[in-house]
Amino acid sequence: MAQPIRKLRIAVSGLGRMGARHADHFLHLTPRAQLVAAFTPDAKEQAWAKENLEPWGVKIYSDYDLMLKHEGLEAVCIATVTTVHAEQTIKAIEAGKHVLCEKPLSTKLEVCQQVFEVAARHPHIKVMCGFSRRFDKSYSSAYQLVTNDHIGRPTIIRSQTCDKYDPSGFFVEYAQFSGGIFVDCNIHDIDLALWYFSAASRGAQLPVVKSVVAVGVTALEPELAQYGDVDNGVGVVEFYDGQIAYFFSSRMNAPGQHDMTEIVGTKGKLAVNASPTIDMLERHTSTGINREIPQNYFERFEMAFVEEARQFTEAVLENKTVPVDLKSSVEAVRIGIALQESLRSGQKIWFDREGNRVDGAAMTGGSKL
Amino acid sequence: MAQPIRKLRIAVSGLGRMGARHADHFLHLTPRAQLVAAFTPDAKEQAWAKENLEPWGVKIYSDYDLMLKHEGLEAVCIATVTTVHAEQTIKAIEAGKHVLCEKPLSTKLEVCQQVFEVAARHPHIKVMCGFSRRFDKSYSSAYQLVTNDHIGRPTIIRSQTCDKYDPSGFFVEYAQFSGGIFVDCNIHDIDLALWYFSAASRGAQLPVVKSVVAVGVTALEPELAQYGDVDNGVGVVEFYDGQIAYFFSSRMNAPGQHDMTEIVGTKGKLAVNASPTIDMLERHTSTGINREIPQNYFERFEMAFVEEARQFTEAVLENKTVPVDLKSSVEAVRIGIALQESLRSGQKIWFDREGNRVDGAAMTGGSKL
Amino acid sequence: MAQPIRKLRIAVSGLGRMGARHADHFLHLTPRAQLVAAFTPDAKEQAWAKENLEPWGVKIYSDYDLMLKHEGLEAVCIATVTTVHAEQTIKAIEAGKHVLCEKPLSTKLEVCQQVFEVAARHPHIKVMCGFSRRFDKSYSSAYQLVTNDHIGRPTIIRSQTCDKYDPSGFFVEYAQFSGGIFVDCNIHDIDLALWYFSAASRGAQLPVVKSVVAVGVTALEPELAQYGDVDNGVGVVEFYDGQIAYFFSSRMNAPGQHDMTEIVGTKGKLAVNASPTIDMLERHTSTGINREIPQNYFERFEMAFVEEARQFTEAVLENKTVPVDLKSSVEAVRIGIALQESLRSGQKIWFDREGNRVDGAAMTGGSKL
Amino acid sequence: MAQPIRKLRIAVSGLGRMGARHADHFLHLTPRAQLVAAFTPDAKEQAWAKENLEPWGVKIYSDYDLMLKHEGLEAVCIATVTTVHAEQTIKAIEAGKHVLCEKPLSTKLEVCQQVFEVAARHPHIKVMCGFSRRFDKSYSSAYQLVTNDHIGRPTIIRSQTCDKYDPSGFFVEYAQFSGGIFVDCNIHDIDLALWYFSAASRGAQLPVVKSVVAVGVTALEPELAQYGDVDNGVGVVEFYDGQIAYFFSSRMNAPGQHDMTEIVGTKGKLAVNASPTIDMLERHTSTGINREIPQNYFERFEMAFVEEARQFTEAVLENKTVPVDLKSSVEAVRIGIALQESLRSGQKIWFDREGNRVDGAAMTGGSKL
Repeated sequence: MAQPIRKLRIAVSGLGRMGARHADHFLHLTPRAQLVAAFTPDAKEQAWAKENLEPWGVKIYSDYDLMLKHEGLEAVCIATVTTVHAEQTIKAIEAGKHVLCEKPLSTKLEVCQQVFEVAARHPHIKVMCGFSRRFDKSYSSAYQLVTNDHIGRPTIIRSQTCDKYDPSGFFVEYAQFSGGIFVDCNIHDIDLALWYFSAASRGAQLPVVKSVVAVGVTALEPELAQYGDVDNGVGVVEFYDGQIAYFFSSRMNAPGQHDMTEIVGTKGKLAVNASPTIDMLERHTSTGINREIPQNYFERFEMAFVEEARQFTEAVLENKTVPVDLKSSVEAVRIGIALQESLRSGQKIWFDREGNRVDGAAMTGGSKL
Repeated sequence: MAQPIRKLRIAVSGLGRMGARHADHFLHLTPRAQLVAAFTPDAKEQAWAKENLEPWGVKIYSDYDLMLKHEGLEAVCIATVTTVHAEQTIKAIEAGKHVLCEKPLSTKLEVCQQVFEVAARHPHIKVMCGFSRRFDKSYSSAYQLVTNDHIGRPTIIRSQTCDKYDPSGFFVEYAQFSGGIFVDCNIHDIDLALWYFSAASRGAQLPVVKSVVAVGVTALEPELAQYGDVDNGVGVVEFYDGQIAYFFSSRMNAPGQHDMTEIVGTKGKLAVNASPTIDMLERHTSTGINREIPQNYFERFEMAFVEEARQFTEAVLENKTVPVDLKSSVEAVRIGIALQESLRSGQKIWFDREGNRVDGAAMTGGSKL
Repeated sequence: MAQPIRKLRIAVSGLGRMGARHADHFLHLTPRAQLVAAFTPDAKEQAWAKENLEPWGVKIYSDYDLMLKHEGLEAVCIATVTTVHAEQTIKAIEAGKHVLCEKPLSTKLEVCQQVFEVAARHPHIKVMCGFSRRFDKSYSSAYQLVTNDHIGRPTIIRSQTCDKYDPSGFFVEYAQFSGGIFVDCNIHDIDLALWYFSAASRGAQLPVVKSVVAVGVTALEPELAQYGDVDNGVGVVEFYDGQIAYFFSSRMNAPGQHDMTEIVGTKGKLAVNASPTIDMLERHTSTGINREIPQNYFERFEMAFVEEARQFTEAVLENKTVPVDLKSSVEAVRIGIALQESLRSGQKIWFDREGNRVDGAAMTGGSKL
Repeated sequence: MAQPIRKLRIAVSGLGRMGARHADHFLHLTPRAQLVAAFTPDAKEQAWAKENLEPWGVKIYSDYDLMLKHEGLEAVCIATVTTVHAEQTIKAIEAGKHVLCEKPLSTKLEVCQQVFEVAARHPHIKVMCGFSRRFDKSYSSAYQLVTNDHIGRPTIIRSQTCDKYDPSGFFVEYAQFSGGIFVDCNIHDIDLALWYFSAASRGAQLPVVKSVVAVGVTALEPELAQYGDVDNGVGVVEFYDGQIAYFFSSRMNAPGQHDMTEIVGTKGKLAVNASPTIDMLERHTSTGINREIPQNYFERFEMAFVEEARQFTEAVLENKTVPVDLKSSVEAVRIGIALQESLRSGQKIWFDREGNRVDGAAMTGGSKL
């Protein structure tokens, strides 16, 4: 008789919109993981968990610290509100648990760096930030092509995150916690830029930011202005050594979620999702030809989240490097925060090669490189 | 503490290309099912099972009858070679097991009908033929639209199954068992035609075949002719009451698998997969813009197979009607066989409304309806 | 001073929907042609001509024979009702005028053959049937690729002509003259099949029809039945030597005109207009992503008609072979008529290699080739 | 007998790549225009004109001033090198000739303004800058939709001009005259932004620039740096009243010309050319599905140039307002120059509502609007 399979015993912290899905993925779609526990302080989420998780043998906790002590627990997937990501991550690391944390670690750079330092002191613990888009089939195929020199040197990256307009105004209230549109939405695009620009070195060598600049408008939700936020933002990030990434984010994309990315290289271009669709169905009616697109981020990236769970699980079980480098995730937050600051101040922000802010008056344009 | 989840205890029979995948789906991707056993007479497949199934607690059998006696077994997924589908299905039914059987039940109509009769005598047993395409998201969305009268009355269905050319010639050898291209490939398209044409009655009223005619050529594999088969076939099925389905199948589609379907109604048309692609990535290089398509049937329909497993499991556990009606599956074989016969004889074949063959000379054209 | 340009002096016969456009093309968009005369017996068309052609120096005639005597006239473009195509073509040939005649020459095969014989007796006169689709950029690019062996041997051709539904019922009345849907609509598709299948020989060797079979339905206009016609037709043409063409035509395509063609070869496939659109604009609104398609045949093929006029003009001026072979155009009518007959009788029709009708009972299926 | 048609007697100045095409369009494809003269100082171009224009009755000049005196001349299309656009335009206006001038009027703002003033002093003379993209069918359809409030208030415009890489290095040499990538390439995109943002007022109210910022890199042609230019540029223009346009230009697009534009409104988005193709043909071969795109700007916009010629001709003959407002064309140059300056200096540039440069330190970000 064969040896039974060893499964990673994992818990999910937070059972909101994304947390519930993470729980589902680890419970049902990640063969090598076993969801053993879940934490939520919220009564409604607990009720959901009683019905949907407990029957599958998952223990429900209302105390995070207690959950960390669940017998045999090896890893935690943190999907709580952003404000407690860092604290819970640190606690988990210090309790010897591997961590998959939803992006971003924090909307504050120093807090991110603190997590990074704690993780650095526990090198045997796997810590990974959940940049789900990297696990999407189209994005990962593009990465393979870039590393195989299919398009030459990646030079320009354009990437956008456009959400369907939510007339409930939820995102207006959320703006006070989200860190702003560049930290909340474009963080994915920034992560992709860092990923593809470092593809030649397989992630070892992150590109170095030279300047960031951003603008934005409040087209539908003027209330956002009080939080220094916008509902449409455009940001440009210039890297040393001749690379540029530019981003667009919008909270008012009419048909649904449209996230797309182009990687422009010296020999070709890769375009991910230039022509969005939710499936392979087109309707030919008297008004023309029509297709639908995903209604939200999860609908677009569901399988990427599943793949993320699987790859994290495998990395822990087989003691491999996690597929999203933590340093890169901190850098993404740094860039997002700088873009948000530029949006607010209206000023272009400059950095030297060591990452220190410098006076732009002394800097010269990209064409002089 | 909540009641633990009740899971359907299922076995998979046959662990070849598709069987191994069915096993994987029931084992890892169908939360409410538990794969408890698997049968294969093949040594190589048994070795695979030892490595990939046994460690997950699956018992491996080399005797089908013995497997049927596995304690607590409730259902069987049959994915052996077509020639034993019917026999195994009947044995399973008679042993009181629910059955999900790969298409077709048999390449012989009378054998299909025999299965149908056995199933009819065991009304508490669920028997479903695995017409996977119905579980694809695009196809099921199209079905919803048809039932919601989005395109008026479905009138013409065009559907094709085009496989990537396999230079190994496997399909030539296989032709002696497959029943021929219309039974092996277009059976899916025939099933879709029956499904969409009966959508108004939610499947209760199958369309009635009036005539079938088929032609074909052996473009790359002349050896097929000895089995009365071709590598490219075109078939037309005329139904009573003004509906037509026409089909194309090919074994030599250069870029990969391209199955597509159009449902033409009196008010609009639904097109599934007119513009095939494997993901959302396009490559812009000096030779133009390029995209890839799935390389085989499974790559195209993987998630549909998973959905099929889930819906079958749910139907059994909750005692619901299975989503693919067995009578329709028999009818699909009948039409496929008639097309293959027409291909071989060169003659158009006619049926009366009761399904009896009639002499075509007495029939009149469709325009007289 | 350079020699002034010699222009082809041409007349247009018939100024209905298409005739007016031909006049416009020769007048304004064919640099090497000079429209010198136009004929129409219709008062309304004459009024249009007075306003739109006469000011540009075009002489208007209400007598065709008189027009043929217009001083210096060299060529005639015939765009009258189909019933007089042949008579006018013969008169023009006998008057020594080159002829570009709208398709079809006639809906009667013997009349087509008569035109062909007259033309054959006047070898210095250019006679060309206006199969406009051949002059479309996408179709002619496809032809180049076929002749360059890009897809191997063309084996299967699928082609469709789908018109937007015209609720005025015009096409019902027209059905008594049109020759039926296969002669009126699919004639283009038949022509394309002959063209691509003879591409290897650059048109010298037409494929030889072995059998035709057709079915159809009257989905929206039952009145069509009295003329032996339908509003949706499917036809299959089998050629000797292993080639098949299958066709679809519809009068009820909801969004507009959708003509598409696939040429399946042993090494690849060319698809023309699989994903129709009228331009490069897509609308992203709350109902999804929407695009429009051409509303009628002319909107889709406008530039092809212009190119046709230019190539015909050049062929005459430079005494080159006309780009559409007259024999092929007669063959297209023969096939269209046979399909229409099969539609009406319900019977498959067989031909021997010399084009004689033979008894199908003696024939065998395509797979035996 | 009807009154003969009155045609606009026009001359073309400059017979280089674009000039020769303009001559062709006015000669052969603009029914209401008569090309009577052409000027070029270049021997090679003169030889071409002798062969291609003179036989059609066009008089060839090697002296621009002399050409202006051609008897009966009413209008001039200026397609010489950019450096003489302004001078020739002014001369033509002062000689009482209407002018269609290739973009840009000049790469120097003060020169543009000088032309504008001369034109303003001759209000009966039509002066139009040839922003060809506005005459493209997709772009003009988009304009109609915007004016019809199909997408709500236009808020964000993204537009790009990407040329196929020219390994001859022509564009490097040209960079010393072109004004730089933002003035040479993105000028079209800037024009489109001004057009769509002023659509609500039908062009009467141009949006007011608040700030511009640009970055760029020399990925393939480092020699460009000596001219303060780049081969890939990204620019962002912020307008007062909550509108943003952002641009990308590239000299190294591998498959060919890819110009695309998105107009994001509060209720929807219009996308022009998100999925580029040269025609409706796709090739399905063993490497996947492939399509080609236009190889250069003219191939993409040929029909737009023809339409431009027709609309200019009609505006003159019927004394209508020209479809491209001259003030807007000057504004486009002003923005292009500012972007180029920002690229070179690395600094963001600010303007007050009157168009005066102001100190950015005093300005606040877009989110405060």
